[in-house]
Amino acid sequence: MTTQQQPTYLASELVAQVRERSKGRLDARLSGEDVVVKRFMPPQSAGTGDMAFLTDARYADAMKASAASLVILREKDYEAVFGAEGRTQGSVLLCEDPYAFFAFASQLLFPVAATPGIHPRAYVEEGAEIDPTAAVEALAVVKRGARIGARAVVRSGAYVGEDAQIGAECLIHPNAVLEAGTVLGERCVVQAGAVLGGDGFGFAPFRGEWVKIPQVGRTVLGDDVEVGANTTIDRGALDDTVVGEGTKLDNQIQLGHNDRIGKHCVMAACVGIAGSTTVGDHAMIGGAAMINGHITIPSGSAVGPATAITGWGEKPAQRTGFFPALEGKDFQLTAATLTRLPQLRKDLKALEREVAELKALIRKEEA
Amino acid sequence: MTTQQQPTYLASELVAQVRERSKGRLDARLSGEDVVVKRFMPPQSAGTGDMAFLTDARYADAMKASAASLVILREKDYEAVFGAEGRTQGSVLLCEDPYAFFAFASQLLFPVAATPGIHPRAYVEEGAEIDPTAAVEALAVVKRGARIGARAVVRSGAYVGEDAQIGAECLIHPNAVLEAGTVLGERCVVQAGAVLGGDGFGFAPFRGEWVKIPQVGRTVLGDDVEVGANTTIDRGALDDTVVGEGTKLDNQIQLGHNDRIGKHCVMAACVGIAGSTTVGDHAMIGGAAMINGHITIPSGSAVGPATAITGWGEKPAQRTGFFPALEGKDFQLTAATLTRLPQLRKDLKALEREVAELKALIRKEEA
Amino acid sequence: MTTQQQPTYLASELVAQVRERSKGRLDARLSGEDVVVKRFMPPQSAGTGDMAFLTDARYADAMKASAASLVILREKDYEAVFGAEGRTQGSVLLCEDPYAFFAFASQLLFPVAATPGIHPRAYVEEGAEIDPTAAVEALAVVKRGARIGARAVVRSGAYVGEDAQIGAECLIHPNAVLEAGTVLGERCVVQAGAVLGGDGFGFAPFRGEWVKIPQVGRTVLGDDVEVGANTTIDRGALDDTVVGEGTKLDNQIQLGHNDRIGKHCVMAACVGIAGSTTVGDHAMIGGAAMINGHITIPSGSAVGPATAITGWGEKPAQRTGFFPALEGKDFQLTAATLTRLPQLRKDLKALEREVAELKALIRKEEA
Repeated sequence: MTTQQQPTYLASELVAQVRERSKGRLDARLSGEDVVVKRFMPPQSAGTGDMAFLTDARYADAMKASAASLVILREKDYEAVFGAEGRTQGSVLLCEDPYAFFAFASQLLFPVAATPGIHPRAYVEEGAEIDPTAAVEALAVVKRGARIGARAVVRSGAYVGEDAQIGAECLIHPNAVLEAGTVLGERCVVQAGAVLGGDGFGFAPFRGEWVKIPQVGRTVLGDDVEVGANTTIDRGALDDTVVGEGTKLDNQIQLGHNDRIGKHCVMAACVGIAGSTTVGDHAMIGGAAMINGHITIPSGSAVGPATAITGWGEKPAQRTGFFPALEGKDFQLTAATLTRLPQLRKDLKALEREVAELKALIRKEEA
Repeated sequence: MTTQQQPTYLASELVAQVRERSKGRLDARLSGEDVVVKRFMPPQSAGTGDMAFLTDARYADAMKASAASLVILREKDYEAVFGAEGRTQGSVLLCEDPYAFFAFASQLLFPVAATPGIHPRAYVEEGAEIDPTAAVEALAVVKRGARIGARAVVRSGAYVGEDAQIGAECLIHPNAVLEAGTVLGERCVVQAGAVLGGDGFGFAPFRGEWVKIPQVGRTVLGDDVEVGANTTIDRGALDDTVVGEGTKLDNQIQLGHNDRIGKHCVMAACVGIAGSTTVGDHAMIGGAAMINGHITIPSGSAVGPATAITGWGEKPAQRTGFFPALEGKDFQLTAATLTRLPQLRKDLKALEREVAELKALIRKEEA
Repeated sequence: MTTQQQPTYLASELVAQVRERSKGRLDARLSGEDVVVKRFMPPQSAGTGDMAFLTDARYADAMKASAASLVILREKDYEAVFGAEGRTQGSVLLCEDPYAFFAFASQLLFPVAATPGIHPRAYVEEGAEIDPTAAVEALAVVKRGARIGARAVVRSGAYVGEDAQIGAECLIHPNAVLEAGTVLGERCVVQAGAVLGGDGFGFAPFRGEWVKIPQVGRTVLGDDVEVGANTTIDRGALDDTVVGEGTKLDNQIQLGHNDRIGKHCVMAACVGIAGSTTVGDHAMIGGAAMINGHITIPSGSAVGPATAITGWGEKPAQRTGFFPALEGKDFQLTAATLTRLPQLRKDLKALEREVAELKALIRKEEA
């Protein structure tokens, strides 16, 4: 993708670093020679220096035939793939979760490239505290009182407002904006053009006009949050707008003032959440879903794509709702019928009464 | 929120300045000592230097017990809250509209901070006219022919194109873009990343391809317009795209070329309006509403959230329409039934005829 | 619109240059004097130096009376408009497609203004290759390995990442971001604030958390693609995200990783397409449509506005689906009835059976 030299690893090093990166939660056992690896490939096209991983037994044959230097699979799949004699070419990593191993290892193979230090053409105000291992690129802006942690990277054109805090190893992409007071935990990623800490949408009605209410809360992100390109997260009115650790937000999402998003949620692109709504932990929100303000969505809930949420009960649930797409004329006809639905229901009830009367009449006659 | 020193006010000064800021429309009567105040707090947590305001009689008890230096309420609520003896601790402001007072006063308590003048690291072309009281921050861009009014602020990374006009006291947030020829009235706020005056979406079909039609109109905003973060307002094709005075647009809104939005409207986030649509004054548009092009929505109308508008009559109205969110299986079943709705209606009509025939038959038998 | 001097043309020059610009496909025949023209106007307000064009016979009278120096119409409309004696004032261009002529000619009348060369206040890294006829404006960023073609323009604040490629005559508006490796064909337009090549939304689930998978594909655009303001097109996970030549994307569109959009498509604003979806050539997607991932939409298909697409068959089709907007109470009632639709259908079926039984009973009685 870029001219940057890609790193290579010994399989044993990779295992050690994945273990560390996963906070000791993901281990792997190497069987065979300690080979040099540099990238992942599909089993059928992998060769020397390549890794291939298996998560789906349907690809067992391709894996068995693979010329990859290193294959990664679950211990329980090993015999099914390679039979009693085992793999005869290249090495093997046995790992409880090969897909997670792929993700962690890929992070090591494609490290974020940046030159530590403040570029002479960056604009950094006096009174900003920037860790010497952090990188502030040319034409980035860091205002007074801002603090930037170790190994964090602020790309060209990004704006870090007064008193904003950026934790260690955060990556702020070009032209992203962190307005004054915004707080990021560690290892957050903010994609290009995202705006954190813009004013919430607060106005007092006054004689048919709208009077702006200054928004004095902040936007606060936990550790390991990802914010997609051109996503916007407004600052709170008085309290903060909060996104919990590990939550991943896709592109063009809008979070209103005082929203409180839980931990380890995922939201697909184009979601909009009005102000003062709470979303619990581990929620999954489909693309282009629209969620009203002042709602609480319990932890573990899921919202389907293109779904409008205007309320919720106390229990976690999976909710979806969108008009099914129909071919041209069918849509017109179905939509027109839909608007008569209440009348249609009344007609049915009336007919039910009529039939009941007829039935009674006939019974009487029979009797 | 920021390291900036926050101002304090004597109650009497605040009243005078709110009066001025509201153009003489909002007054308040001070009763008691002329106390020093610096912020608003909820009644129960307010103390010395704090203000609390009452808009809802349900909070009368908290207000009565409040230790705020200054409480603000309607004259008609005063006796209900404090009884015949009146408030015994701190001072009182009697005001017709405490919430609007809160909004205006908050603007004074949280003034926009900026250093007047052109920062040496701003890029300002020759032929731009910038009022000496305006602020153009580091790495902002102002092109030839642009005019920037008194006390206006152009933040870092913002772009003000050729011949753009920015009225007095406007605030252009970081990385916002005003393309060439864009016009802003006074006191407009453009949040970060917004794009005003981008090309409208105009193409001529030609042999299965699309030929770009240069868009030569402008984007023109009245006084006191607010534009949310990453909102986009395209320039007109020939005529201008216009947003009327006092209208407030939330984040990630899209207005197409030649839209004409009235005065004092509010639009929640993620609204999209296609080109050449007119929205009257005081309209309220819910979040993620989608409005087709070449429509006129009369003044005073309201559109609900997530609602698609494809036409309108001549009268103002409140319109809403979105598929209700249902739990997983219920959605599938309901959506499937919906697509059979026209058939279902036919079946009902057929059954009605059948029952009518049966009834006739029975009557004949009876006779 | 701007202080820039607008060019003037002899009619014959304009015809020649439109022919060239349309790659020889659009010709026009001049009848009368070779007049000087400088702009298009509606027939009724056009005068000396103006052009007017006719595409709709309803405006024939205005065209007949027009004082335009040059009128442009189809040969087959000429006699219907000007009668047997022909046009008596000014000149005439006979052209098979007057609207396309207007589009091409307007491009010539409103050329993109830029000063070739790298502005001394641009930030261009060593190892970037910039054609000497290209323009890189003040405070634009071009990183190492990037290549910028002839007569291309990179406006202030735009970011061109490592190894990005920009074809001849591309126009990159202010504050747009092309992340590392992004590829643009010739004559592409990227409006302000658009983000190309941001990371796709890819995470591996691991113990209730989400582990980022580095996205190492690219975003690749063909020739003549237009990308609207604040639109986002993510880079691919492994393979590329591709937009075919001639496709026009409006503002605030989101394309996910590994989407493959065909040639000469149009998408209105606010469309969202999840990852790994394929859209064929000449497709038309309405505003705010939402398209799920891993779908193939055949060439020539159309999707209506505000429509959710979750699947498609093998044939091109036109599909639409959104809940019709209703006045306040009607919406509540209709939505409530909709959720009972499956029960309503059951009730109808039950009633049909009952009526059938009644009918059988009566027949038996009759017999």
